[in-house]
Amino acid sequence: MIDICLLGTGGMMPLPYRYLTSMMARYNGMSILVDCGEATQIAMKKKGWSAKPIDVMCFTHYHADHISGLPGMLLTMGNAERTEPLLMIGPKGLQRVVSALRVIAPELPFEIRFHELTQPVESIPFGDLTITAFKVQHNVTCYGYSLQLARAGMFQVEKAKALGLPVQLWNPLQKGNEVQFEGKTYTPDMVMGAPRKGIKVTYATDTRPTASIEEFAKDADLLICEGMYGEEEKFENAKEHKHMMMREAARIAAKANPKQLWLTHYSPAMPWPEDHMQPVREIFPNTVAAKDGQSIELGFEDE
Amino acid sequence: MIDICLLGTGGMMPLPYRYLTSMMARYNGMSILVDCGEATQIAMKKKGWSAKPIDVMCFTHYHADHISGLPGMLLTMGNAERTEPLLMIGPKGLQRVVSALRVIAPELPFEIRFHELTQPVESIPFGDLTITAFKVQHNVTCYGYSLQLARAGMFQVEKAKALGLPVQLWNPLQKGNEVQFEGKTYTPDMVMGAPRKGIKVTYATDTRPTASIEEFAKDADLLICEGMYGEEEKFENAKEHKHMMMREAARIAAKANPKQLWLTHYSPAMPWPEDHMQPVREIFPNTVAAKDGQSIELGFEDE
Repeated sequence: MIDICLLGTGGMMPLPYRYLTSMMARYNGMSILVDCGEATQIAMKKKGWSAKPIDVMCFTHYHADHISGLPGMLLTMGNAERTEPLLMIGPKGLQRVVSALRVIAPELPFEIRFHELTQPVESIPFGDLTITAFKVQHNVTCYGYSLQLARAGMFQVEKAKALGLPVQLWNPLQKGNEVQFEGKTYTPDMVMGAPRKGIKVTYATDTRPTASIEEFAKDADLLICEGMYGEEEKFENAKEHKHMMMREAARIAAKANPKQLWLTHYSPAMPWPEDHMQPVREIFPNTVAAKDGQSIELGFEDE
Repeated sequence: MIDICLLGTGGMMPLPYRYLTSMMARYNGMSILVDCGEATQIAMKKKGWSAKPIDVMCFTHYHADHISGLPGMLLTMGNAERTEPLLMIGPKGLQRVVSALRVIAPELPFEIRFHELTQPVESIPFGDLTITAFKVQHNVTCYGYSLQLARAGMFQVEKAKALGLPVQLWNPLQKGNEVQFEGKTYTPDMVMGAPRKGIKVTYATDTRPTASIEEFAKDADLLICEGMYGEEEKFENAKEHKHMMMREAARIAAKANPKQLWLTHYSPAMPWPEDHMQPVREIFPNTVAAKDGQSIELGFEDE
């Protein structure tokens, strides 16, 4: 099971009742944070989630509303006595930007490791999860992220029996290990069914619609996507500043067919995103005008 | 009249219901901000005050909880289309720290001017106001600030009449100008009474008690002072980390006699500052356990 929380839903600047867009995922004791704007740590505390177990921070890009909360977040993690290393993933320049911001957070009790993205698509395994960064289209280099939890196939008892394997060797095979029996090597694929559907969450903000978002949103359990403007007349503005309309996000979802679409990164000038949802839901019915703290527990389909 | 708002009252980290310590003063269309931690811009918006007219930002020191909100605040001022220059005042290193933080706020439509403090006490005139920075005692170089609005004496009609000055020359003299009349020069002191009590607000946080705070709190209309801990057993902690107990702030006030004392910069571990106020008020009765957004309009005494 993966817990997902959209800590905030704002773009540009934090507001009293709308924190900046940031997603947190918790899985098996690990936490992953995508973007960390000013006050993201407040949003996290309000939700009751903790900064200490954040093992990975992913940054879409380095506009202030996506990273201005970093120094405070790092210090809060340090105050919580985190000592395990923290992996940061982001576009080229990551280490330079983080080092500059750390002028006010120079001493931390944990190491920071950097993964600077250089390819259009990069997958970084993290425990059982795979974090895939994919390039999107903003006015600076910007990436979306897809978190994927793979799920092995079912163990095929009949196959194991047909091979004559003793029961005590079934478990290691099921866990992905090779085993030896009577001088022969047996591999997991000999006893496991085809991989089953895992869990996939895809996050894309500060971008025009792209084929990459559609690709990584394909059959996702959840697509979290920018929907900065709802009003038709903001379309030129969206194009100029490389942002996305709510209905454009819905069109991506209509093609990629995620289970649901959460809109986020609302313009500060749009007080009530819900007001603009009717035409959006005509394009993709299962669209949510997400609110700060919106969360979901995503489990495997048949569990 | 000066409007004062203590935008937040927290120390170390922002909390869902307690923003970081920051004071804003408004006078005659100008605004002055003292400290700007993460989410100070949210606190300001919640109060309904605007970032655009901030002409001066004063920083006590460069620990993150006093400056982490700077990049976002600058961008918000830029988005509001501020074009007038902004003066920043702070301890040595100001320009270096601000330049580093501006890695995520590189483009602004206004100029920033820097005044780096090097002396134990420095006064910077700003319009009718005088901003005085005075050194306090923290584990890094740290300053308190006193905002003072001077008030000229009363115009002495009898003196002006005795000098035989025509009525049309009274006003320029009252406004502080010299005038010429029948070949003679007349100066304001010839017709003005002794200066009257002006308005004084003093702000000191992240410091042990110092003589300088007492000096600048002397007869102030308002002293805003750190009271990080209320519990007796936190005294060693306060001394070690160069912070101040609530009762120590009250002792300063008892000697300096400001009209009132507002405590601020509470430890995140102290949820209810009011719980600790009884012994504090025994030392200085007019002590307020200030809350976020606490504000006051300070006028001249007899107006």
